[in-house]
Amino acid sequence: MTSKVLASSSFRVADLSLAEAGRHQIRLAEHEMPGLMALREEFGPTQPLKGARITGSLHMTVQTAVLIETLVDLGAQVRWASCNIFSTQDEAAAAIAVGPTGTPEAPAGVPVFAWKGETLEEYWWCTDRIFDWSVEAAEAGADWIGPNLILDDGGDATLLVHKGREFELAGAVPATTAADSHEYGVILDLLRQTVAETPTRWQTVAAELIGVTEETTTGVHRLYELFAKNELLFPAINVNDSVTKSKFDNKYGIRHSLTDGINRATDVLMGGKVAFVCGYGDVGKGSAEALRGQGARVIISEIDPICALQAAMDGYQVTTIESVLDQVDIFVTTTGNKNVITLEHMQGMKHNAIVSNVGHFDNEIDMAGLESLPGATRVEIKPQVHEWIMPNGRSILVLSEGRLMNLGNATGHPSFVMSNSFTNQVLAQIELYVRRENYPVGVFVLPKHLDEKVARLHLDALGVVLTKLSTEQASYIGVPVEGPYKVDHYRY
Amino acid sequence: MTSKVLASSSFRVADLSLAEAGRHQIRLAEHEMPGLMALREEFGPTQPLKGARITGSLHMTVQTAVLIETLVDLGAQVRWASCNIFSTQDEAAAAIAVGPTGTPEAPAGVPVFAWKGETLEEYWWCTDRIFDWSVEAAEAGADWIGPNLILDDGGDATLLVHKGREFELAGAVPATTAADSHEYGVILDLLRQTVAETPTRWQTVAAELIGVTEETTTGVHRLYELFAKNELLFPAINVNDSVTKSKFDNKYGIRHSLTDGINRATDVLMGGKVAFVCGYGDVGKGSAEALRGQGARVIISEIDPICALQAAMDGYQVTTIESVLDQVDIFVTTTGNKNVITLEHMQGMKHNAIVSNVGHFDNEIDMAGLESLPGATRVEIKPQVHEWIMPNGRSILVLSEGRLMNLGNATGHPSFVMSNSFTNQVLAQIELYVRRENYPVGVFVLPKHLDEKVARLHLDALGVVLTKLSTEQASYIGVPVEGPYKVDHYRY
Amino acid sequence: MTSKVLASSSFRVADLSLAEAGRHQIRLAEHEMPGLMALREEFGPTQPLKGARITGSLHMTVQTAVLIETLVDLGAQVRWASCNIFSTQDEAAAAIAVGPTGTPEAPAGVPVFAWKGETLEEYWWCTDRIFDWSVEAAEAGADWIGPNLILDDGGDATLLVHKGREFELAGAVPATTAADSHEYGVILDLLRQTVAETPTRWQTVAAELIGVTEETTTGVHRLYELFAKNELLFPAINVNDSVTKSKFDNKYGIRHSLTDGINRATDVLMGGKVAFVCGYGDVGKGSAEALRGQGARVIISEIDPICALQAAMDGYQVTTIESVLDQVDIFVTTTGNKNVITLEHMQGMKHNAIVSNVGHFDNEIDMAGLESLPGATRVEIKPQVHEWIMPNGRSILVLSEGRLMNLGNATGHPSFVMSNSFTNQVLAQIELYVRRENYPVGVFVLPKHLDEKVARLHLDALGVVLTKLSTEQASYIGVPVEGPYKVDHYRY
Amino acid sequence: MTSKVLASSSFRVADLSLAEAGRHQIRLAEHEMPGLMALREEFGPTQPLKGARITGSLHMTVQTAVLIETLVDLGAQVRWASCNIFSTQDEAAAAIAVGPTGTPEAPAGVPVFAWKGETLEEYWWCTDRIFDWSVEAAEAGADWIGPNLILDDGGDATLLVHKGREFELAGAVPATTAADSHEYGVILDLLRQTVAETPTRWQTVAAELIGVTEETTTGVHRLYELFAKNELLFPAINVNDSVTKSKFDNKYGIRHSLTDGINRATDVLMGGKVAFVCGYGDVGKGSAEALRGQGARVIISEIDPICALQAAMDGYQVTTIESVLDQVDIFVTTTGNKNVITLEHMQGMKHNAIVSNVGHFDNEIDMAGLESLPGATRVEIKPQVHEWIMPNGRSILVLSEGRLMNLGNATGHPSFVMSNSFTNQVLAQIELYVRRENYPVGVFVLPKHLDEKVARLHLDALGVVLTKLSTEQASYIGVPVEGPYKVDHYRY
Repeated sequence: MTSKVLASSSFRVADLSLAEAGRHQIRLAEHEMPGLMALREEFGPTQPLKGARITGSLHMTVQTAVLIETLVDLGAQVRWASCNIFSTQDEAAAAIAVGPTGTPEAPAGVPVFAWKGETLEEYWWCTDRIFDWSVEAAEAGADWIGPNLILDDGGDATLLVHKGREFELAGAVPATTAADSHEYGVILDLLRQTVAETPTRWQTVAAELIGVTEETTTGVHRLYELFAKNELLFPAINVNDSVTKSKFDNKYGIRHSLTDGINRATDVLMGGKVAFVCGYGDVGKGSAEALRGQGARVIISEIDPICALQAAMDGYQVTTIESVLDQVDIFVTTTGNKNVITLEHMQGMKHNAIVSNVGHFDNEIDMAGLESLPGATRVEIKPQVHEWIMPNGRSILVLSEGRLMNLGNATGHPSFVMSNSFTNQVLAQIELYVRRENYPVGVFVLPKHLDEKVARLHLDALGVVLTKLSTEQASYIGVPVEGPYKVDHYRY
Repeated sequence: MTSKVLASSSFRVADLSLAEAGRHQIRLAEHEMPGLMALREEFGPTQPLKGARITGSLHMTVQTAVLIETLVDLGAQVRWASCNIFSTQDEAAAAIAVGPTGTPEAPAGVPVFAWKGETLEEYWWCTDRIFDWSVEAAEAGADWIGPNLILDDGGDATLLVHKGREFELAGAVPATTAADSHEYGVILDLLRQTVAETPTRWQTVAAELIGVTEETTTGVHRLYELFAKNELLFPAINVNDSVTKSKFDNKYGIRHSLTDGINRATDVLMGGKVAFVCGYGDVGKGSAEALRGQGARVIISEIDPICALQAAMDGYQVTTIESVLDQVDIFVTTTGNKNVITLEHMQGMKHNAIVSNVGHFDNEIDMAGLESLPGATRVEIKPQVHEWIMPNGRSILVLSEGRLMNLGNATGHPSFVMSNSFTNQVLAQIELYVRRENYPVGVFVLPKHLDEKVARLHLDALGVVLTKLSTEQASYIGVPVEGPYKVDHYRY
Repeated sequence: MTSKVLASSSFRVADLSLAEAGRHQIRLAEHEMPGLMALREEFGPTQPLKGARITGSLHMTVQTAVLIETLVDLGAQVRWASCNIFSTQDEAAAAIAVGPTGTPEAPAGVPVFAWKGETLEEYWWCTDRIFDWSVEAAEAGADWIGPNLILDDGGDATLLVHKGREFELAGAVPATTAADSHEYGVILDLLRQTVAETPTRWQTVAAELIGVTEETTTGVHRLYELFAKNELLFPAINVNDSVTKSKFDNKYGIRHSLTDGINRATDVLMGGKVAFVCGYGDVGKGSAEALRGQGARVIISEIDPICALQAAMDGYQVTTIESVLDQVDIFVTTTGNKNVITLEHMQGMKHNAIVSNVGHFDNEIDMAGLESLPGATRVEIKPQVHEWIMPNGRSILVLSEGRLMNLGNATGHPSFVMSNSFTNQVLAQIELYVRRENYPVGVFVLPKHLDEKVARLHLDALGVVLTKLSTEQASYIGVPVEGPYKVDHYRY
Repeated sequence: MTSKVLASSSFRVADLSLAEAGRHQIRLAEHEMPGLMALREEFGPTQPLKGARITGSLHMTVQTAVLIETLVDLGAQVRWASCNIFSTQDEAAAAIAVGPTGTPEAPAGVPVFAWKGETLEEYWWCTDRIFDWSVEAAEAGADWIGPNLILDDGGDATLLVHKGREFELAGAVPATTAADSHEYGVILDLLRQTVAETPTRWQTVAAELIGVTEETTTGVHRLYELFAKNELLFPAINVNDSVTKSKFDNKYGIRHSLTDGINRATDVLMGGKVAFVCGYGDVGKGSAEALRGQGARVIISEIDPICALQAAMDGYQVTTIESVLDQVDIFVTTTGNKNVITLEHMQGMKHNAIVSNVGHFDNEIDMAGLESLPGATRVEIKPQVHEWIMPNGRSILVLSEGRLMNLGNATGHPSFVMSNSFTNQVLAQIELYVRRENYPVGVFVLPKHLDEKVARLHLDALGVVLTKLSTEQASYIGVPVEGPYKVDHYRY
């Protein structure tokens, strides 16, 4: 077992005393993740994931540690990497490598390939590592070489399999061109190496895979595209669109972490300030609510007339960023689009305006433009907080270099929110593994009764008492007493 | 034209001076219904509803008057009845009968069969009348006998056609049995008479119908059931599930009218009181928000764990009605289910607790049980507000006799909300009429671009300025610049 | 006793069947006025107001009826008039005249001189009547001619005594001049008549008076002015500045009645609309909260930088009315100042903007200017709601002709709020009557322990459970266990 | 000048590179402290504090650094210590020692005696040092030995003068007894030493003092007590009771820092949780608002019926801590009293309940009882966050060891709030120094026009535009056009 731990810890998690700190945090997080703990209680005895080999690519945080140990508790074998170069909490990685019953000296955990602050080369090396199950196969005397399930966040693990197989079948990995992003070049380099070593590796991996469960909007979007182009190789469960995922994580998670991030980054009083939230989807709704809850005056921009009308009905001013640029103290992007805040916008802002993103990629704010603006100077106030002194003499404060500030300046979604998301993940893994015959190649959402189950597992912790339908009432409205209670298109 | 007006006005709208009052209110309502006014401007010139004969069954209020006149403005002929025995505003009915350009002496309006306080017999007589287009046919020298479109609310008009045709084909209307409700007996009586007079009337009517657009959850539910049983006779557009209908009317409409109704009924301070809201769907969400906005402490009950979790995350206590029965000052049911407040509940309430329903039918509260409770006394405080002195000596205040108090004690959804709903209705009528080839028998929701259009038509009035996607941004997120912007299952 | 009732009822309350309706409402109001009911229970047995002859001038509403009957229950004799020509609820007046134990045929109530819609001449005649205790004196065989206590709202009763005495001593009532307001002319006419009849009447009345308790800011302001000029004739208790009066009635009362008034007047959806509140004192704070609670976007204007900063910290935009004139849908004045909304403002408003006042006098909005604007037309939509069609073709909707719309379009403060105010009034009357030796001529607020008592008497009804200080804790923070708990300048 | 810096830096601020980090933060804080910056602009040229020697005892934070540099900018000489052993931000202390124009190598700042984590002995040594102006006197060739003004927070500096003088006059410092707290023993030890060295030192210091300006409720309370006992030695300005201090710092400051502290300490989702706030004064009001803004359900306890009624009217449940002990996830004390959360309470709490204090001393929670509870185990999760495993097996999480968690787990009040408080401080120092003849021995609040000035200086930064009274309006309501606008007892 040592070798597995070394595989990760030999890199950067060398200080194994981290593991103990991580274990403390995991213990506290378990209390805030009642859904996962309930699954351990319900499914631990029957081991539904026995035989499952799960390759996980998802932010290696304390909450993910509770997810991983839940998967293990249900019988799975797991290898893990983070899905973001900055998002690993090293103490969580260390604790998960050591394992709940292990010690730093006698580790008994899960092979984890993740540390805070990876390079892109390191990141994709890690992602490659979670597909190499040769140690486990050897231990088991088995001939498989990869996982049978992927648990993905953003789709990088899924991408690697698809691209690897594609290039293997094409006979060669294409040359990197000037038009390729740096990251795509790194991926091509990696695949060139794997193809050279094992020319059919990704074909074998793809063949072994029962399916993938995907966490995010972006990853899901990629999956639907692959499926539409008839290129998807295995079934996928879209965990993102469970109600208890997207409506909770996006709205209530961000309500928690947005103001937390602003506080930790700047200590600025939000009360009385003007905050501008780009986008009024679920993330925008949660952002606006949090800012209003701190006494800020919130202005919204929207492209979608329905969301714009919702924002107005919720009492917010809705207008374009240009029309109020010089009145705003705090900017937040929540759109998932690009260039939502442009370089021109930034040059028109108030002195010391705060600029931050909780949407998706860092291109939501034109960071590239800012970085190449002649005469702009960047001063690090503290890590993840930079003052940009603009040529006009005014400064703006950019959080997390334009990346997700709720991760970079705060600690991301809190455990309770992640418990909802991850309980969906575990149920989706079970669903794919146990009822695989129900899932042809395609993209599926979890059946509503499981979505409701996720919610149900989180009620006790909040002291919520559900009302029970009588048989007569259930029949009157035409639903089973035990649910599901709503039509599929119900919007909540 | 006189005859049409007489058809309605000869009943109860005799005092034609009402028409002038109604006209004033219609003029003010038009200002609050920008969606409908925009449709008049956009479509008035091209008359897309020319040739449409619309049978409308929907609360005959001032707002409906603006809807009716919009349909007429787009070229349609219209006959109208209310869909509820209490919901007619007589001045609106009078004004619509007189018509915008007519006078009481020279009416030029729409045949309307509706007055406040119909008996069930009168109600179904009115519903029958809107299917009799013989006057119009005679005027036009045409041989049709019925409408080609239904605009329905709750499905009563649709029901009449289906039942009439069914019994015609069966050769006889079944005898009324003891198990039938009083209302069903009234319907059977009516159909017995029509079958006797014109044995194939409803078959002809059904054959002439292009389709129906349905306003409410209940009506839509009936349509899906008919379709599932393969009994639906014509295409139906489910207007209720447009986002700009269900998420606006249910949530923002009730936020307006719930507290309005409590105020008009009781003048009781809500601040500091404990309010109990049964159900946290859209209506429950709007109710809770309104009550909290007045300083009440709101407790929620729910059967659906997802909605229950939402309520908790929004900061409400969630528990059963039984557990807090004696602490609650104001009860509100929002569920659409029955016996949500039982007789036993009512007997355990605080003295002078207020009991009200904004869900669906009056059986949401066990009014029948209350009315037959030995020793209970009913005192009318004022119309639609009754004190029930219970055998235990305590009183409860029941609003609108358990029926929808936002209609009975207040004035229902305000014009702006109805403008959203009714703009969907008009677009749905146009869609069915103009693009009928796209709609086989089935139940459809409006395409998202029309839902977005409804929202768009209401933004200017609120001073909302939309942000426009650049071509590059639209392409980046994979949507057209002009929308639609979201996948169909997006939950808003 | 008949004669007393006739004194009032012979005027307009002729329809004594009103009394029964009023009695119903009084009974419901008693439930919402726990403070007054608790005083009846506490003080009824000891009759602390035995011998008190109270002249009351305060809106003759259902709530005031509960106040009056509480005073009577504590031993007082009472005569009553309204303090506003429009504010009387006739059924309340009728019921109070009949009395709780009387019947229309055998009335046993309090002489009340008030009806809805008095002329100014009638109003001041009524005010004169409540100072004429000759019937009661005759019945008692006593030689007093007036009250020994005044309960005043706005100071009209107090004014009449002061002016009457002043003119008696001056030997003549001055001639009415062109500069005098119409109302002042009416007062002078009345006093001319009383001086002619009984030249020392007001001197005697003033001499008999132990003091006055005053309800409102305006009345209190007059009292402080009189005292500063050394002209105050008797002690006064400033009830207005009890915390449980000014911070409750102004803030929570208006939160209730502002949106109620807008709803009843216009049925306009407030959600999504822009509302402009002039002033962020207690009334402005309550107004803004109510409007926000309905989903409106609220903008504030303020002259006081402290209140302006509070508004900003509470998340509202704060600016001048001029700068947003054409964006606002609903205007509310709450200042007590004049010309807060000018004619120029009204001419710059959006079409169908709603203009209303919950501050003090109708001159808060320049109604006089509007009424004399050439080319402006006034259309009555319904009583208390007028459309003014401006020369520019746009309309504005003026509520209650610029007077207090929470009274004119709604029903004023709800019972529970008035219970707080009136419990202060009763305690103040007792304080003046029983502990008169503590009160020299001057203006006093109630001691804090009584203010706290008022609050305490309203907690049970809301299910509030107080925490009790231990002796040790009380000593640690240096307050008595039973209160008062705060220093006098504490701001709550 | 080196010697001054050494006086402080020789202790713990040895790492002078801290100064640069502190300077950055000061520069950002200046942007958020518009009141202080406006005072520099207004008063810098006239140097009203020239000749003032200010001894300051107040948390040595970044915001205090801006205060200190404002005082210096207005002409004052300053010596500074913190008023709390934990509250110093070392980088702020370093920067202030180095000075805005100095460098670590050539410091040009203010003598500052403060570092994070002082012992009580060190704390009082620091407090003593700020009264020793011998270096400055020597430099100036003057014969004074102490300050002529104190700027105090909590009253420790004032206490030292009073006690020192008292014991000097008594001829001896009393012996420490068993009943004395450890801290009082430290004070006695210190004074024993100073009396031994300079027997008349504190008498001289007291005689030189023009007065003190006091920041906090507690300090003000001590001052009123001293004055009541006729023991106050010099005038005092009660800065705490400026509206722009107590109503802003207590309410809006805590609204910011309470949730910030909970987040940094625990990362727990507050949404859906039950939070219990002990006390509904200004701090309680701000706490409740912040928690509700994050979606928590808030329950309040109160001893004062008025505040309890306010809490109910604001929609909160109000009850005793005992009655909901096992339902609460987060406890917050805000009372300033002791034993508000008892050992018994803690033993009845839910597993992992969070226990925190933002009131005053750490005895608000019975930490002493907890620390001596047999069988209770303390585990440090991270600094200022401790899990206490109770004998019953459940844990509670205690923040900041029961001390002010908004300081210990967060960064205290944000700059903008402190700008209000400190602008009051500077105006109070000017008032005492420039208009000393207006202030006999006693405790005074700042005149209202200065309170309004403080607010006024913070409006521009928030984009607030004040409305101006016309002369006519000002006269109508009887206030000067430029203010003050309210009577002294106005409650805001």
